[in-house]
Amino acid sequence: MISKKQCADGRDVELTSGVLKERQETGIGRTIASTMKKCVETGRLRSLETPWQEGMPDKPHVYWDSDLAKVMEGMAASLALRPDAALEKEYDRWVDLFVASQQPDGYLNTHFTTVEPEKRFTNLLEAHELYCCGHLIEAAVAGYTLLGKRKLLDAMCRYADYLCTVFGPHGVRQGWPGHEEIELALVKLYRVTHKKRYLELAAYFVNDRGTQPNFFVGEYPKPLSDEALKHFQALKPVREENEAVGHAVRAVYFYCGVADVANLTDDGELLASCRKIFDNLTQKRMYVTGGIGSSFHGEAITSDYDLQNGSLMYAESCAAMGFTFFCRRMLDITCEEKYASFMERALFNGVMSGISLDGEHYFYTNYLEVDENLHCYNAGSPVRKEWFDCSCCPTSFARYLTQLAQFVAAFDDERDHVYLHIPTACKLHHAFADGKTAEFEVSGSYPYDGNIKIDVRSAGEWTLDLRLPGWCDDVAVSVNGKEVYRGAGGNYLPLHRVWRQGDRVEMKLALRIQFLHADSRVTNDLGRIAIQRGPVVYCIESPDAPCPVREIVLDPECADMKEVILDAGSGLPAGTVALQFDAWRETVKNDGDALYFEGETQITPIRCTAIPYALWQNRGPSQMAVWIRTMTERKER
Amino acid sequence: MISKKQCADGRDVELTSGVLKERQETGIGRTIASTMKKCVETGRLRSLETPWQEGMPDKPHVYWDSDLAKVMEGMAASLALRPDAALEKEYDRWVDLFVASQQPDGYLNTHFTTVEPEKRFTNLLEAHELYCCGHLIEAAVAGYTLLGKRKLLDAMCRYADYLCTVFGPHGVRQGWPGHEEIELALVKLYRVTHKKRYLELAAYFVNDRGTQPNFFVGEYPKPLSDEALKHFQALKPVREENEAVGHAVRAVYFYCGVADVANLTDDGELLASCRKIFDNLTQKRMYVTGGIGSSFHGEAITSDYDLQNGSLMYAESCAAMGFTFFCRRMLDITCEEKYASFMERALFNGVMSGISLDGEHYFYTNYLEVDENLHCYNAGSPVRKEWFDCSCCPTSFARYLTQLAQFVAAFDDERDHVYLHIPTACKLHHAFADGKTAEFEVSGSYPYDGNIKIDVRSAGEWTLDLRLPGWCDDVAVSVNGKEVYRGAGGNYLPLHRVWRQGDRVEMKLALRIQFLHADSRVTNDLGRIAIQRGPVVYCIESPDAPCPVREIVLDPECADMKEVILDAGSGLPAGTVALQFDAWRETVKNDGDALYFEGETQITPIRCTAIPYALWQNRGPSQMAVWIRTMTERKER
Repeated sequence: MISKKQCADGRDVELTSGVLKERQETGIGRTIASTMKKCVETGRLRSLETPWQEGMPDKPHVYWDSDLAKVMEGMAASLALRPDAALEKEYDRWVDLFVASQQPDGYLNTHFTTVEPEKRFTNLLEAHELYCCGHLIEAAVAGYTLLGKRKLLDAMCRYADYLCTVFGPHGVRQGWPGHEEIELALVKLYRVTHKKRYLELAAYFVNDRGTQPNFFVGEYPKPLSDEALKHFQALKPVREENEAVGHAVRAVYFYCGVADVANLTDDGELLASCRKIFDNLTQKRMYVTGGIGSSFHGEAITSDYDLQNGSLMYAESCAAMGFTFFCRRMLDITCEEKYASFMERALFNGVMSGISLDGEHYFYTNYLEVDENLHCYNAGSPVRKEWFDCSCCPTSFARYLTQLAQFVAAFDDERDHVYLHIPTACKLHHAFADGKTAEFEVSGSYPYDGNIKIDVRSAGEWTLDLRLPGWCDDVAVSVNGKEVYRGAGGNYLPLHRVWRQGDRVEMKLALRIQFLHADSRVTNDLGRIAIQRGPVVYCIESPDAPCPVREIVLDPECADMKEVILDAGSGLPAGTVALQFDAWRETVKNDGDALYFEGETQITPIRCTAIPYALWQNRGPSQMAVWIRTMTERKER
Repeated sequence: MISKKQCADGRDVELTSGVLKERQETGIGRTIASTMKKCVETGRLRSLETPWQEGMPDKPHVYWDSDLAKVMEGMAASLALRPDAALEKEYDRWVDLFVASQQPDGYLNTHFTTVEPEKRFTNLLEAHELYCCGHLIEAAVAGYTLLGKRKLLDAMCRYADYLCTVFGPHGVRQGWPGHEEIELALVKLYRVTHKKRYLELAAYFVNDRGTQPNFFVGEYPKPLSDEALKHFQALKPVREENEAVGHAVRAVYFYCGVADVANLTDDGELLASCRKIFDNLTQKRMYVTGGIGSSFHGEAITSDYDLQNGSLMYAESCAAMGFTFFCRRMLDITCEEKYASFMERALFNGVMSGISLDGEHYFYTNYLEVDENLHCYNAGSPVRKEWFDCSCCPTSFARYLTQLAQFVAAFDDERDHVYLHIPTACKLHHAFADGKTAEFEVSGSYPYDGNIKIDVRSAGEWTLDLRLPGWCDDVAVSVNGKEVYRGAGGNYLPLHRVWRQGDRVEMKLALRIQFLHADSRVTNDLGRIAIQRGPVVYCIESPDAPCPVREIVLDPECADMKEVILDAGSGLPAGTVALQFDAWRETVKNDGDALYFEGETQITPIRCTAIPYALWQNRGPSQMAVWIRTMTERKER
């Protein structure tokens, strides 16, 4: 029996301070507004207002609907957190425009209704048709769940009902989405409507994909290589898959849907595949920041241990976000702490690096190393941009920053459990199915400080499942001053009590500075270390370095590491913990202009500072490195 | 006034022993035969024997003519070195087939005569049309020069005459080759025919390229980005170019043509561009092996200091060969030793690595680092293959290994100079324009041994310009036992004498083992060194390593380097100098299956061996690295 936990949302969890709260605030205040503005400026919204006809500018691209849908989802989530009449009016207008564009049979797609009306469902592989539908469903579910608005939900149910007559067990034809997303969306729709056919269609998309005869091979006019099918996670059924493969965003969105279907259909075999894929991804194909997709080429996951840090890499923001969705689902199902640790790794590092502190500039590629001569491929800019032609990352942040609560806690309504995944400062209030309520406030400065207080605000019998992070080797938990646990992290500690108002749980996490090595098969990281403290991965950025970052060598044994709490004048958020340390500058003397030369190595002492990776490139264009060269002791022999 | 030196060919220089001689032998004995066989098996030759028609298999690809032409050029060069009646008969048959396929107006192209007869000259950007013509011209010139056979030469003159009526100063329309090659070929044709219009057409292709309005932008049906035009060296006129850009093979073939035109039209401005481009390429964009093109993506040169060693890189064999052609031309023009040094670097390393010792297997991508988990893009296999769909590299070797003499020496017939670029064992015999002859024999085991003897075999007054290699800091030259030079290398030493038979010149080159650093802006090579001895770059290959190559750390200060001359039982050519040395194996203890972990570094002494990079992967699939991690002294502070 697979657990049926449900993650929190903005109604249960109110962030009160700290990193996540600050990011949520920029999301509400800036990201929503700026992505809405860009949707207007680029013609995306106009494609709804004035249906495109030949001769008009701004022909709707096949993925435009998804951008609008993601921003709408963000608008709904933002309104749930902070009502805003003007925003709500605009939100309603966008919904009206979408609903007005719906066809009589329920079909809803701006591109295929205006640009290629005769080509509906003829190029599922490339045309993002079901992907757009998925994002619209997600927006509809958010609008309904968070705001109680049914209009878009009803429209998307009509569309989904129509889809059920076309594809899947009740449909007439085979078909797989070229860019997965609709699977997880249909499961969301099923959760709020309880219409079984949506779950069945999701299960069909999950289970039929990759079977023989291969739908994509039949659909696509040109031959598709195995490599191409792998790009679409369609070379074999996911049930037979052991590896995370292909286009990174497609992959993680798909794995979310697979996990959802495994969960809701109690499919242990499918869950086993999710576990294998997750382990392959995290043990062999993930950056230390939680970024995934090591090649700009195909925006793709490549092969085991192939993890470049510079030019070639990708680690797209959307992929990191999607990876946290996958982690969260695995966590909801299994309640195994490792899923929380990876979720948190991506969330605090490889996701948050994707957006500037001003909430309006984005990385597509989240490099781990940027030197002055970085060669950029595709959308890979070492400076965050306001928008991209293919602007999935900005619109993803619009819906992500406004829904951070989902990562903080989860609930098991059947057994009255509250799982606290990330002990960030927040007020939590949850009514279980049986009417009991759990209410408590988390305070502290996690992830920068390891002292966490949980003050219970309501009386009742329920279980608080406290996550003891896997990265921590010294956790102490007390209830009302009495120690109930002391030891290493890596699991959840269930605190079952009849709680009384005023009860206090304290958790002390030793935030040791860790120097991480990569498996030596990651040859790009050989002889280098990454700095981590708690769940936060650090980098050295040029504004804090007295020499080019590439010349810095760090010897952990005599680094004299010092934690410094930054103030607002630092250009980074007040309260950020930076690390100051002794290091060396290594240069090799080159008398001429040769690229390769004999030369004497010179080493001089320096003191420099590391900052959280997620915060780099917020003080102007800069150079940066996560993996810092370290020293090997020279031995005589 | 630009020098008008002419490089040697197989008629002037007879290789007698050593690395180049051995490679030439496999070229004659194996590469020619195996590429001929592949041209038959793959339908390439059949496309000439039985002109393709709809419904027949093996539709001629746009580049097939070039493959056949390069093999024909190799056949001619092979026949010049070693007469072979059967091979000559086959060569004549190929020539007959090509000539029979020539159209009445002189046009000659298998693809466009059979597959798309209506599309002649409509897609110069992509269709390799003028590229194929260039290779056929080169084959024709080789057949004429080396064998005295006129038939193909006459046919190609007819084609070139026709081209002159279409393009260029005497033509009717604008046009640039999408893949350069014809420029250098037309110059070759001009050199043997003295028909000025061929040089004029070459000069047109060189000078018009990149001017406004941009021909490619006008020709191509879709918009072309600046990046796309750069790929084709067509974003701006080469006269305004300071950098080596775009597709690496296109680039170096083009720069050869530019240098040729600069040379033969005494165009100092064009030559200045060649110098700038060459400097940019060699000081910022070249591997230590002389390989160029650091990205599989577009098979392209990227940007300064962007030089990956593994997955992403390319360093195509054809590009390295083309680079040696460019070096040779710059050397012919300037007689500056640096051009010889770079030529030799590529020749002995990044070119020769491209072909197996059996002469029948090829790398497309010449990696500098191959670990067990290498991710391969495009044609990038870490194991040499017999053939590729796009099989430029094998056919390039067919013509390259049979014409190695061109790199050994050059002549200035106007001033009676012999330039000895590479002092490999050979017999040289050259008749100057004034009837004087220079004849001498070079002996020794260069590049593995630095003791070179040159025995003069004929009497006469001429100048021997002896190259003193730039990589050598201790060169001693004596004539008949009397020292005439002692000092560092980096220039040519002119020995002007009335030579007598029996005169002996000796050159002693100190072959010090060098540990090279890369400019620190090549961040991929930080903390690593490459081993070089003379012009030979070394690597560590797994058969010679007691642990995974990636775990080896080399400390030059206590390496106890020892030179070992291998015998035939080694699996590598007898006489190869390998290097044995003390090193360290560095591992980090990992108790679990985490990709990133804290762990104690363990270091154990090992002894291992480095072999010439060009010889790796001749003992089965293996791992290999050129850039070896080194040690930084741990200092207390």
